[in-house]
Amino acid sequence: MRKLNIQKKMPQISIRGNEMPASPIRKLAPLSDAAKQRGIHVYHLNIGQPDLPTPQCAIDAIRNIDRKILEYSPSAGFRSLREKMVGYYAKYNINVTADDIIITSGGSEAVLFAFLSCLNPGDEIIVPEPAYANYMAFAISAGAKIRTIATTIEEGFSLPKVEKFENLINERTRAILICNPNNPTGYLYTRREMNQIRDLVKKYDLFLFSDEVYREFIYTGSPYISACHLEGIEQNVVLIDSVSKRYSECGIRIGALITKNEEVRKAVMKFCQARLSPPLVGQIAAEASVDVAEEYLRDTYDEYVERRKCLIDGLNRIPGVYSPIPMGAFYTVAKLPVDDSDKFCEWCLTDFNYEGQTVFMAPASGFYTTPGAGKNEVRIAYALKKEDLQKALVVLEKALEAYNKIEH
Amino acid sequence: MRKLNIQKKMPQISIRGNEMPASPIRKLAPLSDAAKQRGIHVYHLNIGQPDLPTPQCAIDAIRNIDRKILEYSPSAGFRSLREKMVGYYAKYNINVTADDIIITSGGSEAVLFAFLSCLNPGDEIIVPEPAYANYMAFAISAGAKIRTIATTIEEGFSLPKVEKFENLINERTRAILICNPNNPTGYLYTRREMNQIRDLVKKYDLFLFSDEVYREFIYTGSPYISACHLEGIEQNVVLIDSVSKRYSECGIRIGALITKNEEVRKAVMKFCQARLSPPLVGQIAAEASVDVAEEYLRDTYDEYVERRKCLIDGLNRIPGVYSPIPMGAFYTVAKLPVDDSDKFCEWCLTDFNYEGQTVFMAPASGFYTTPGAGKNEVRIAYALKKEDLQKALVVLEKALEAYNKIEH
Repeated sequence: MRKLNIQKKMPQISIRGNEMPASPIRKLAPLSDAAKQRGIHVYHLNIGQPDLPTPQCAIDAIRNIDRKILEYSPSAGFRSLREKMVGYYAKYNINVTADDIIITSGGSEAVLFAFLSCLNPGDEIIVPEPAYANYMAFAISAGAKIRTIATTIEEGFSLPKVEKFENLINERTRAILICNPNNPTGYLYTRREMNQIRDLVKKYDLFLFSDEVYREFIYTGSPYISACHLEGIEQNVVLIDSVSKRYSECGIRIGALITKNEEVRKAVMKFCQARLSPPLVGQIAAEASVDVAEEYLRDTYDEYVERRKCLIDGLNRIPGVYSPIPMGAFYTVAKLPVDDSDKFCEWCLTDFNYEGQTVFMAPASGFYTTPGAGKNEVRIAYALKKEDLQKALVVLEKALEAYNKIEH
Repeated sequence: MRKLNIQKKMPQISIRGNEMPASPIRKLAPLSDAAKQRGIHVYHLNIGQPDLPTPQCAIDAIRNIDRKILEYSPSAGFRSLREKMVGYYAKYNINVTADDIIITSGGSEAVLFAFLSCLNPGDEIIVPEPAYANYMAFAISAGAKIRTIATTIEEGFSLPKVEKFENLINERTRAILICNPNNPTGYLYTRREMNQIRDLVKKYDLFLFSDEVYREFIYTGSPYISACHLEGIEQNVVLIDSVSKRYSECGIRIGALITKNEEVRKAVMKFCQARLSPPLVGQIAAEASVDVAEEYLRDTYDEYVERRKCLIDGLNRIPGVYSPIPMGAFYTVAKLPVDDSDKFCEWCLTDFNYEGQTVFMAPASGFYTTPGAGKNEVRIAYALKKEDLQKALVVLEKALEAYNKIEH
């Protein structure tokens, strides 16, 4: 009797589940954990979690919570929070009403809902690269396609000419997405560049998704130029925002999607209703944070100015290393004298330590979609205090020396 | 000179943005608000927000929060929470490890990530109807298609025969989704029905998404049968859970996706990393809640037993009204002597009051996808205290009398 070869089939995960990128910021985390297990001190230059304290008024609001039931909040978020945010935006000459604001679970959910509401499967979004890696993840979630337009470290990550954009625009192009100031490069768009984007958006009837979560962190002295300041495209702009970075409260997961386009808001609200409500306690903390003393924001700002100087000067003093001077956010993309920064970043965690210390950086390859781009670049966050940045710079210099002495 | 007719085109919202259903639970909310504005007291029989207190230990955990920075938590949620949940599940003979558990922003995010990770656009999921309306919303978000299998009030919402399922199964069928105990019907699947589902899942290599957020609320006296108890389909089961209902803390947005299938977990984790982390403060409250005294859960349970009796007896005493006895959750779907429950529910809010009071119910049509199904049914939640339920029943009886005297 012949033996039947019965092999039980297992249900397979989805194509997009396979296509989803691993986070370039978090993928090396197990190696970092292992290094710590070996007793090595790891400087986290990889993540954008500020080490600055959350405003005391936010912590107090949570500690003084006086509720018997932690119940659902409205799907669009508390009106009191949205009204308070109107005042915050007014300081930046961003004129919105509470009805224009929808509270989301972090800026992340705002990006996802913007994509789901505005893009059909197969639609294309133009994004300058290097770009925040999770845009790609949200695009895959929504079945949309990100077309990147290259910016380079040699040109300080400034926007390419209009023609480069127009070369990419076709009948499936539905939106341009910018992150301003930029993560990962720290680049801040100029007035000329913002006008260029506005004209493209207008000419081709595109949505403009503008991620402005680093608005507070600009180091030029000039007023911030928001997508909401651009005239004639008020109905095209979808602003992505978050309280995470400006109040050092990434964990409360409070963001916002803001648009004057009522049709978009109506669609977004259906996605909001499906997930019922944004986090209750986070909203309470966020609302208190909007009232934080000016001093908190000024101190935070001054701190980042110093850290930036410390990091960028330090990087450019290391032989073979180059970093442009980022005008915003708290990241820079630096070029290292290595063959492959993925290998180098991994090696720092697995094979290297200097006096019991090493550095954890995010290989820049994860922020590019163009194969091979950014191969010798890394993203470095300056969310650590100056003394730690200084020590990390010494470790990085020693690591580069050691790495370039060995055979690869 | 001819005048050019230049009309500026606006970018359009997406097809799925149009297709997303409005929430049947929340869509009448503006009418309810207007009634309140007119000074009418509205009994909320429409929503599943329990009026019972959140455990004091959860509130205390929040009030005692001792952190300087409200920072990101791990993408899978705190290990300490996941480990505590292992002990909770063990009480239900659900044997999982902390690694099998991924913390999500409410059960809602767990459903969305399950769909995104397991289903391709165009794939089909079989769902018994009436069903929780937001499954449809998440399916549309993921580009998947819900195929419903009818259950009826006349048969007490029991599962149809295997053949009815098999009639729906084709090469695009990838999963069965059950909600047990069921929202909106309160139906609890029997052992025979669970085995029937298990055999189908096994025979056709399907995923089984099992939403068990009402696990605590079963009124039969027999042990709860979880999808995780079904032998031979351990790799097929994806459990959806939430702390919202059992601890009356819907607002903290803490849920979980639990599966023994490592490939599914790996895919889900990529979606989790993209959205960075679940809410920090909510996790702290949830972790404390798992330790709540047995008495809290017993009191809650006893309360719902009484409310159920009060509501169901009261409904069945109203002429022309029929409700089966739900064996779980805190909802029932009842049949009313009206032509169209959408019209009736709306009329209750716009045109009726009895001694300054009215009722807000969810028309059942929103829980069916089959056109015309449930036309004279409503979903009624018994999340209100008994005295309010009793008053609401009087109001409902008066409303039915008045409604049936007028011309429609």
